[in-house]
Amino acid sequence: MTSPVLPSWREGPARTAILRFVAEVTTPDGDHYLEPPDRIAVFDNDGTLWPERPMPVQLHFLTERWREMAAADPSLADRQPYASAVSGDPTWIASVVDDHYAGDDTRVPALAEAIMATQQDMDTDTLAERVAEFFANARHPVLKRPYPACAYQPMLELLGFLRESGFTTAIVSGGGRDFMRVVSADMYGVPPELVIGSTAETSWSSSREAVVYGASIGVLDDGPQKPVLIWDRLGRRPVLACGNSNGDIEMLTHAAAAPRGLALLVRHDDDTRDDPPYDGGAERALAEAGRRGWVTVSVRDDWSCLYPDAT
Amino acid sequence: MTSPVLPSWREGPARTAILRFVAEVTTPDGDHYLEPPDRIAVFDNDGTLWPERPMPVQLHFLTERWREMAAADPSLADRQPYASAVSGDPTWIASVVDDHYAGDDTRVPALAEAIMATQQDMDTDTLAERVAEFFANARHPVLKRPYPACAYQPMLELLGFLRESGFTTAIVSGGGRDFMRVVSADMYGVPPELVIGSTAETSWSSSREAVVYGASIGVLDDGPQKPVLIWDRLGRRPVLACGNSNGDIEMLTHAAAAPRGLALLVRHDDDTRDDPPYDGGAERALAEAGRRGWVTVSVRDDWSCLYPDAT
Repeated sequence: MTSPVLPSWREGPARTAILRFVAEVTTPDGDHYLEPPDRIAVFDNDGTLWPERPMPVQLHFLTERWREMAAADPSLADRQPYASAVSGDPTWIASVVDDHYAGDDTRVPALAEAIMATQQDMDTDTLAERVAEFFANARHPVLKRPYPACAYQPMLELLGFLRESGFTTAIVSGGGRDFMRVVSADMYGVPPELVIGSTAETSWSSSREAVVYGASIGVLDDGPQKPVLIWDRLGRRPVLACGNSNGDIEMLTHAAAAPRGLALLVRHDDDTRDDPPYDGGAERALAEAGRRGWVTVSVRDDWSCLYPDAT
Repeated sequence: MTSPVLPSWREGPARTAILRFVAEVTTPDGDHYLEPPDRIAVFDNDGTLWPERPMPVQLHFLTERWREMAAADPSLADRQPYASAVSGDPTWIASVVDDHYAGDDTRVPALAEAIMATQQDMDTDTLAERVAEFFANARHPVLKRPYPACAYQPMLELLGFLRESGFTTAIVSGGGRDFMRVVSADMYGVPPELVIGSTAETSWSSSREAVVYGASIGVLDDGPQKPVLIWDRLGRRPVLACGNSNGDIEMLTHAAAAPRGLALLVRHDDDTRDDPPYDGGAERALAEAGRRGWVTVSVRDDWSCLYPDAT
């Protein structure tokens, strides 16, 4: 018998915990009933809603920008990350990300500066157009399909099931907010105002009558900053949080501390399908999950398929 | 004949401009048609959706907090604004606000410090409870009714009409965001995530597993900061903006610059009813409205009533 909800979730503790949670908070005479405005669910993006390996999607976009910038200004071509982008060899960039997962952020400032440079002085409408162009054309290097078709199918089902159950679903990611917002409504059914992420500083240009990106980071939406930004943007406490890495610990803790909170931690443990296994960057989160009784979602055991059917 | 929409708006240029605008952006084959996700309308709050005289509503709330704090710590009672709160004479506080409207912010830092002190180290849930208590009990000093019954009736009709026409309506106010959010859904039909305002700095407390207010201002949502925060929170450009003071100029400019943008400026020019006439703090905005062709909303001429029927 096929279940009508969460069809790509196998029977098991994760699926059971989700169904029980939703039943409890939506049963009007139950102890844990929540009015719909209090049904807030937050999701990390990279590694939670879509894959972050072999490299975060946004890094693919940025690499294309760095290549264009180095073509326009050859003096950049010897510097990283531009050299890496020009050569088509992502080793340097990938190693910065790996170092970051391992706790070494030595080269992050150089990368951050180059990220800011891709959009500095650009107005917000123009960046959104470029991002839309990227999503229309780029392909995931392994899956060979457009990124908007690379969401994890079980997560699309979970987002939809929660919304049908009266939840507000929001994205809370370390990734760039203005990058994700361009596709969040079509991909995930999450409108721009419910996408929270890292930002560049912006200011009002009275001469251009537009909002324009500056040279510095506005906010890095990671770790303890996640619950702060959730309050900042939503004004409510989440009762369900779902993440996959150390940067999600505080957000998961905050949701789990709600009277009937549910914390879900996705574990990439599947060596048989198109989602490489890794625990790098999730070691502390996995330990916390064990200690605090968070629900672990095993990609291998809990998900019967990974991606939407190719179109 | 009573019109089915905007019944408290008298026939006149403001009402006509609003109806024409909504018709144009919602007519599918028209030149200015907008898909619903692009129908974004933003509203200032103090002096636009509810009265800001004799003093901003939030200042009433703060005065009660200062009185409590001075009672608990008598050393405060000789200092302003505490002394003013204890004596029940709002002259000092009102004069700081008047000076601000006149461009003199000399005493604003002392006021800001005292504002921050009312909530410092408090977690966000606790502040929300105190604000809810205030709204349940306080009365507007002139209107003698609870503040949630003090919204301008024509504005409630406009918010509702816009939402029925597929718009997302948001509040963008210099007032405290976490103060407004407590009543915005019930008063205005605007959920917390669509309330943008001034904030205190907040941080995550791992020991309390809560988001906690700090001692400094996070962001002052006024002037050029308004379009920046609209982008920051909504990720879309407004096509309708409505304000009443100099602090709304950039927000109005941004909306008016959209292909079929509409900027509405409320003018408090009624000396016959319960809304005192004043142009203080709106001089530049009124000049811009004339120069740029924004639509002025006259409280005297355009609104047939001011407040919802008393219950």
